[in-house]
Amino acid sequence: MAETAANGHIPESNIDVLIIGAGPSGLMAAAWMAHCGVKARVVDKRNTKVFCGQADGLQCRSLEIFDSLGFGDRAWKEANHMLEICMWNPGSDGVICRSDRIPDTIVGLSRFQQIVLQQGRIERFFLDNIKKYSKDTIKVERGVLPESLEIDVSKVEDDSAYPVTVKLRQLSEEEATPKQQITASKVNDGIFRSNLIVEDDEDDLIKKSQSRGGSSEIVHAKYVIGCDGARSWTRRALGFDLDGEATDFIWGVMDIIPITDFPDIRMRCAIHSAENGSLMVIPRENKLVRLYIQLKEVTPDASGRADRTKIAPELIFRSAQKIIAPYNLDYQYCDWWTAYQIGQRVAPKFEAHERVFLAGDAVHTHSPKAGQGMNVSMQDCFNLGWKVGLVAKGVAKRSILSSYQSERRRVAQDLIDFDHRFSRLFSGRPAKDVMDAEGVSMEEFKDAFEKGNMFASGLSVNYGPSTLIVKSGDAAEQGDGSKVAQSKATQITADAFAKRQGLATGIPIGMRFNSFKVLNQSDARPWHFQERLKADGRFRIILFAGNVLDAAQKARVDKFCEALDAPTNFLRAATPGGAPIDSVIEVLTIHSSKRTDTELLRDFPEILHPFSEQHGWDYNKVFVDDVSYHEGFGDAYVNYGVDKERGCVVIARPDQYVGWIGELEDFEEMQQYFEGCLVLRGTQATNGQTLAVR
Amino acid sequence: MAETAANGHIPESNIDVLIIGAGPSGLMAAAWMAHCGVKARVVDKRNTKVFCGQADGLQCRSLEIFDSLGFGDRAWKEANHMLEICMWNPGSDGVICRSDRIPDTIVGLSRFQQIVLQQGRIERFFLDNIKKYSKDTIKVERGVLPESLEIDVSKVEDDSAYPVTVKLRQLSEEEATPKQQITASKVNDGIFRSNLIVEDDEDDLIKKSQSRGGSSEIVHAKYVIGCDGARSWTRRALGFDLDGEATDFIWGVMDIIPITDFPDIRMRCAIHSAENGSLMVIPRENKLVRLYIQLKEVTPDASGRADRTKIAPELIFRSAQKIIAPYNLDYQYCDWWTAYQIGQRVAPKFEAHERVFLAGDAVHTHSPKAGQGMNVSMQDCFNLGWKVGLVAKGVAKRSILSSYQSERRRVAQDLIDFDHRFSRLFSGRPAKDVMDAEGVSMEEFKDAFEKGNMFASGLSVNYGPSTLIVKSGDAAEQGDGSKVAQSKATQITADAFAKRQGLATGIPIGMRFNSFKVLNQSDARPWHFQERLKADGRFRIILFAGNVLDAAQKARVDKFCEALDAPTNFLRAATPGGAPIDSVIEVLTIHSSKRTDTELLRDFPEILHPFSEQHGWDYNKVFVDDVSYHEGFGDAYVNYGVDKERGCVVIARPDQYVGWIGELEDFEEMQQYFEGCLVLRGTQATNGQTLAVR
Repeated sequence: MAETAANGHIPESNIDVLIIGAGPSGLMAAAWMAHCGVKARVVDKRNTKVFCGQADGLQCRSLEIFDSLGFGDRAWKEANHMLEICMWNPGSDGVICRSDRIPDTIVGLSRFQQIVLQQGRIERFFLDNIKKYSKDTIKVERGVLPESLEIDVSKVEDDSAYPVTVKLRQLSEEEATPKQQITASKVNDGIFRSNLIVEDDEDDLIKKSQSRGGSSEIVHAKYVIGCDGARSWTRRALGFDLDGEATDFIWGVMDIIPITDFPDIRMRCAIHSAENGSLMVIPRENKLVRLYIQLKEVTPDASGRADRTKIAPELIFRSAQKIIAPYNLDYQYCDWWTAYQIGQRVAPKFEAHERVFLAGDAVHTHSPKAGQGMNVSMQDCFNLGWKVGLVAKGVAKRSILSSYQSERRRVAQDLIDFDHRFSRLFSGRPAKDVMDAEGVSMEEFKDAFEKGNMFASGLSVNYGPSTLIVKSGDAAEQGDGSKVAQSKATQITADAFAKRQGLATGIPIGMRFNSFKVLNQSDARPWHFQERLKADGRFRIILFAGNVLDAAQKARVDKFCEALDAPTNFLRAATPGGAPIDSVIEVLTIHSSKRTDTELLRDFPEILHPFSEQHGWDYNKVFVDDVSYHEGFGDAYVNYGVDKERGCVVIARPDQYVGWIGELEDFEEMQQYFEGCLVLRGTQATNGQTLAVR
Repeated sequence: MAETAANGHIPESNIDVLIIGAGPSGLMAAAWMAHCGVKARVVDKRNTKVFCGQADGLQCRSLEIFDSLGFGDRAWKEANHMLEICMWNPGSDGVICRSDRIPDTIVGLSRFQQIVLQQGRIERFFLDNIKKYSKDTIKVERGVLPESLEIDVSKVEDDSAYPVTVKLRQLSEEEATPKQQITASKVNDGIFRSNLIVEDDEDDLIKKSQSRGGSSEIVHAKYVIGCDGARSWTRRALGFDLDGEATDFIWGVMDIIPITDFPDIRMRCAIHSAENGSLMVIPRENKLVRLYIQLKEVTPDASGRADRTKIAPELIFRSAQKIIAPYNLDYQYCDWWTAYQIGQRVAPKFEAHERVFLAGDAVHTHSPKAGQGMNVSMQDCFNLGWKVGLVAKGVAKRSILSSYQSERRRVAQDLIDFDHRFSRLFSGRPAKDVMDAEGVSMEEFKDAFEKGNMFASGLSVNYGPSTLIVKSGDAAEQGDGSKVAQSKATQITADAFAKRQGLATGIPIGMRFNSFKVLNQSDARPWHFQERLKADGRFRIILFAGNVLDAAQKARVDKFCEALDAPTNFLRAATPGGAPIDSVIEVLTIHSSKRTDTELLRDFPEILHPFSEQHGWDYNKVFVDDVSYHEGFGDAYVNYGVDKERGCVVIARPDQYVGWIGELEDFEEMQQYFEGCLVLRGTQATNGQTLAVR
């Protein structure tokens, strides 16, 4: 990327987006840049990707996101699926016994369920996806360390400026290879090669010769995204500290192929022993099982920190054997192990000048047992990536960027609260009876686990008002407390909001668009509607057209489409000259008439199935809520809570979150919505500059 | 592969299996060799794979097969799904109108439905799969032409011999490049680069330098499989001619992106015009539509053959426009086109000395419209590959090879009959009224289409008796008329057969094992049972264990397992010394007790979940017919027609076809079944030689 500096000068270059850190969170940001067609670079100080161990649980919502990017199927196929949680508690004799079974994922919540797959595979899927969508232009540059970061505050509001300057240094091979923990054990504790490695990862094992080791360069970026983990260099460069504290609870983690007569070893288990601490069993792919093992023998020193170097796998495993007794537990193969001290911390700010953003472990840390870390981190960047991408491209206004901290820092706060409560219940000694006030009630634990399931699915996230979410109420209160930009469209009373939400009671504004099956009008193929909401950076208008065979309703639809098609309105104004009409905003229709009584060309205005000289009409935009031949009936209108006769209109953001709902007649409010967040041709940009017509 | 011949001698080498032709049929054979771990070579005279056009329809059965190999999901994801067939016939005014809609795939037949994807993609999936499972040892050698083939008849019954000698020549670049048809059109008619090419195919576009152009080698093979198409060199080397004849019907084929107001362009359509011939519409992936167009203007000459060089896409397209009028039809992009004369032909024999086998177009040709060709051709080799592979490995007896011609030539004969009837009805002029005896009744056509759907799914195949299928009746009559080897187990009366079939009325002996959802006992995950019948060359015993919580039934299961586990019986006798007990025959269990009342280690004998020192017990062999959390209830016992208390035992061949059904007490007959088809340690081999213990 950087020019050679024959004269000894440090080479300099510009880039739209610089991503620091290539874990799942940084790769998610990079994936958005690839899908949006934004110029980006990704640097990571490590010289190879992760191959085993690390985070592993994938929530329903993460799978929905993977599916929107195009690799949900790969994760679903390779992963271990977790279906049931078994609770094991001390019986009246003090010996552990199974006390309960609950479904691992709440039934009906999503078309996916929680699964387990190691982080290395997920990074593989991201790398393949980024390569494909960026046409190999976005690559991870490994062994590259940032050394300084400066923001030119005078230029932060200038859309054409590159106000962030980062100095990067190429590490030598030795510097970039992480040190292995030195113990007596033969088992790796980190990112080294696992013997379960999958074939398509092999190329990454070949360490590239670092001919440029030691060389430096200067990068001028429009935006920087720091995804560089718990000890984030980027965060420290911005001068932010994590707020929060560590607990006394110390846990070990081992990925082993267990040899055991414990009957539920292939179920997710929460085991509370009477005296020896707690154990969580997470069955995984390739016969592996992950054990989270409470280490009662290890305690923090006076400074509050435990000495990790004293913890060896033998010690961890002995603890597991004590907890799971009287069952036998042994292993011959260990894939990975580590240990951690539970603590909950969150950064005070997630961004600086809306030019440098932080995501993932860089701004929140907590215990890994709930399987949230990787998910929430990736979702940070699934929230941030399209916003930065569309702003960098000049499609969206800079004011949308303030919603990132408001939306995601709030999620991090909720996560910390959840983890704090859950960790205490899980690490506590089970109560002997109702009088044992110091012990943890197993009923309370089960209750927390069940309630936590909704949170843990990632589907309870509900974003507050902003230029992107038209909601009543206080934005600071519904977010993380910080200020959020608003637009004309988003000033709405509680009554008006309730009325709008009433048009589609199954599509909560601020939450992700739920999925039910509908049929393509043109070929009768059933689709989960979410499959049509691909992560390609486009906003979507979902027109619930209702019963189009009713003349009055048809007139409403025609009138709506006429407004949509008008040259001065937002749809054409948001679309760059010469580009297809669905480049920035895609219009999808779901109608409720009988499929076989309706015809695409006859019953639907052309704006709903645009014509192209080369390809004819678009057959993939109009859907019908009707019975399929082989996959039942999605009953989408009923499930979405939409009136089958009159329908309604919904705006979904590029990340599938619902931004607005209205009647077919509320066109002016839709116009205001898009004026609030997109750069429309001929209209005023946020900063008072008039943008040239692109 | 061949040694360098510095001294001018032609290099010679041995190989277990030589496959001639790398189309879908040859690649299927190669896939089996990869999955079975058999040494094989694949040669093809063309210098690149197919990229566009060619065959495209995939039956349910082909998808089940792809899934058993591991790439069903890739085809399902990329393909266009066809859900509905629309019939268009002349109305009373002579203008075409929609007369009927029927589902494209019979509802409930399979977990897959018919889809459309071009042959080039299917070859890609095969190539990737072969690379993965053969660990890159089986590669297609392109630009290689066989020049002579000899069978040493004195050695054909010797298991250790290489009795087939083939001389191969490496073609020069020029020789290996197929000639493009010379017409005035700019559109390719063959295997050249399509601009819709998919990224992961790009490597194949780089033409390798043919440094060895012109060099020859001699290969000695145990077995040769000829999959070299309608003008098969292998078939001609064996001296076989195809029997059958051409009709007067001449059709054109075009893959275009249509620009049309015809309302059903994304449905599969059968259009009979009043006077201008017939048209079949097959919607495809990437906005393409394939049109099969009857060319009434072109007629065969005195010799009975049409002059294909006179047929240009303009002529074909004009015919299509006439047929589809009054609707408009146009295009800007054509991906591929060709023309063909309908004819049905089949070879008199499919093999020579059970050492050289022929498959696919090499032994049967017919019209492509029913979407059968590629499917039946691949299925030939799905039938043949494991048989040749297991015999070459010394696992199965040579006598199983006689079932290939019996089973597959019969299918070819049925296909020819089907195609003959279907082509006549489709190419004929629609009857004007009931008195119009020369015209085709549109009712009869619809009826044939609906009935043909079962045949066209590939799921009506029902193999006759052999050493592999225990059935009553005459083997020649149920097969193609040729002799088929029998064993002691397969001599069974009609009454005894009916009784056995009665144990599992939903699992027809001779047909493929149907699929319903069951749960893994150990982790509650739902699986379509067919997903557990992978194409890895293993026979499978499916133990329907019934209600294992009933003491009497448990005693039956225990007794069955004791016999299974006995050192002298077939399971251990079939397994090579030192190999895992499930290497040749895998035992899978489906029980009918409540999942949560049963436990793997407590309620099931160890032979049903074998123990390994390294990996502990096997958690993937015992399943339960119970309700799932998220995917409903498969109700497998009811659907398979098996008694929930008493169960039964089923043998499935490596290709998922059902070979035998019996009671848990019929162990001796199971023993005879495997004695009849497998090489058991210490037992006599077919040819009177005692095999050494492996």
